[in-house]
Amino acid sequence: MLSEFDLISRYFTRAPRADGPIALGVGDDCALLIPTAGMQLAVSSDMLVAGRHFFADVDPYTLGHKSLAVNLSDLAAMGARPLGFTLALALPEARAEWLAPFAEGLLALADAYDCELIGGDTTKGPLNICITIFGETLPGQALRRDAAQVDDDIWVSGTLGDARLALAGYRREFADQLVLSGEDHARAATRMHQPTPRVALGLALRGIAHAAIDISDGLVGDLGHILERSGVGATLSVDCLPLGPVLMHQPQTLQRQFALAGGDDYELCFTAPASKREAVLAAGRVCDTAVTRIGYIVDLPGLHLVDANDAALNLPLTSFDHFSTT
Amino acid sequence: MLSEFDLISRYFTRAPRADGPIALGVGDDCALLIPTAGMQLAVSSDMLVAGRHFFADVDPYTLGHKSLAVNLSDLAAMGARPLGFTLALALPEARAEWLAPFAEGLLALADAYDCELIGGDTTKGPLNICITIFGETLPGQALRRDAAQVDDDIWVSGTLGDARLALAGYRREFADQLVLSGEDHARAATRMHQPTPRVALGLALRGIAHAAIDISDGLVGDLGHILERSGVGATLSVDCLPLGPVLMHQPQTLQRQFALAGGDDYELCFTAPASKREAVLAAGRVCDTAVTRIGYIVDLPGLHLVDANDAALNLPLTSFDHFSTT
Repeated sequence: MLSEFDLISRYFTRAPRADGPIALGVGDDCALLIPTAGMQLAVSSDMLVAGRHFFADVDPYTLGHKSLAVNLSDLAAMGARPLGFTLALALPEARAEWLAPFAEGLLALADAYDCELIGGDTTKGPLNICITIFGETLPGQALRRDAAQVDDDIWVSGTLGDARLALAGYRREFADQLVLSGEDHARAATRMHQPTPRVALGLALRGIAHAAIDISDGLVGDLGHILERSGVGATLSVDCLPLGPVLMHQPQTLQRQFALAGGDDYELCFTAPASKREAVLAAGRVCDTAVTRIGYIVDLPGLHLVDANDAALNLPLTSFDHFSTT
Repeated sequence: MLSEFDLISRYFTRAPRADGPIALGVGDDCALLIPTAGMQLAVSSDMLVAGRHFFADVDPYTLGHKSLAVNLSDLAAMGARPLGFTLALALPEARAEWLAPFAEGLLALADAYDCELIGGDTTKGPLNICITIFGETLPGQALRRDAAQVDDDIWVSGTLGDARLALAGYRREFADQLVLSGEDHARAATRMHQPTPRVALGLALRGIAHAAIDISDGLVGDLGHILERSGVGATLSVDCLPLGPVLMHQPQTLQRQFALAGGDDYELCFTAPASKREAVLAAGRVCDTAVTRIGYIVDLPGLHLVDANDAALNLPLTSFDHFSTT
């Protein structure tokens, strides 16, 4: 069996770019990072657990991708530019057939976003993937959750709900309502397994958007964090939500449930003043990412759902919570 | 049962110090850290797994202490000043009786070292604690593993082996050789459960020491990393090793085994030129930390163990490796 140190050096050690922000990479007590003068460092940690955030038998290549993607998505939601990340990995056993594709999926995404693996830890244990990511942002330009203002528009990037739809397919939930061919399920499953972090959009929204969050636990729950921290409420036009292309062909009840409360989309939900509508649309075009206006911020606390006729909707929604039993 | 978000806010959220390096703490997509102009950022991640790095039923207060201490120790080994850390935590269940003392032990040590909790993640899963720590160091002053030079002295801080001795006591290993009262075992166990990170010594050694590492896996294995990365060898005077006060009263075979290859001491092993002997001793005095000269760096690769008469020793040693079966 490979030793811990062989593992690390074989799959995860690469020399940092000479012109990059990494003065010292994997292999010492600490990595050394050179911050750009005048910038703030954005830091986020996500822990992914088998059976909770992914199926234990999931394709390791897509798992490598997703592990980094959810962290890049946190930088995107802050409007931060990626610099590097650490990887801590607990594995029941050290198998090359798993480690090689996992590293490949992880590092392919790292390369695509210029985000270097700078250090970490490997240990034996129940499968657990913990990534801490670093990015940078200009002081005062970060897209914070507490920055939403009354009368801001609420926007969402891309489409919602296909990741949750894929999960329903795997779990054989809603079997009497779902209309899902194998091909459709595979298409939706790509959204679940290989989310696209909206880093370029987050960067393009600096100076335009007020507040932002990424949708990991479901739109209602995540927008709720913006509302709570900003001390405001929101009116959301449920029939304006941009539905995933597969979800679009499902019954309306599931469309609403999955788009409002389905997790794992990793789209951005953000607020911006009405005066910036053209600028938001332009930012979306530059990044080749759809942006859809789905509501507006109000004074009255709470989330108010309305239909296409502005009639109040009262939907039974459950947001994703790792400790809930739903 | 508490929800994930209740948990985080109840036990781990504290407002960052107004005059500190944290612009935004727990509760957003990312934390924001303000690097000091001209400094490099030192980053390290450690993952602790139940049954591997600690007993699942260990006192949660000391576990909180140890989880952060092993990370502070990585900063110490780099000569970096602590800034902050993220905590990612997987728990089988959310119990206040466990979380409250765990947070207390963790945050007491954080306060003692001016190292703020800036963010993280909490999820349901097999117990797993992943901390990523940040510190800063002046460019060119970090104590790197690859900086040992031929003829450097080799030093170690504090004493060695009592943590491994405590583990032997718990495991009832070497029962025919160990002489261990309950009181002695409790004393050694404090070294295992609540290691003291040598942060002040690491800072005091900047500009004096060449290479440094912290002893987590055992002196032989960890010094081996310095030798490998510096492309040198070492001669180690086994009878000069500073033994833990409890280990001191055990048979010589165990003294050597535990001092050379026992893990979990979290002392610093470092090299410095002979011309700096007085400066090293002065640094130890300033930090109230014993420093002991235990050998010297040589050209010839490999680790050469000698006794008090400079006679070669050939000891069967096994260093700690998380993936080994020893």
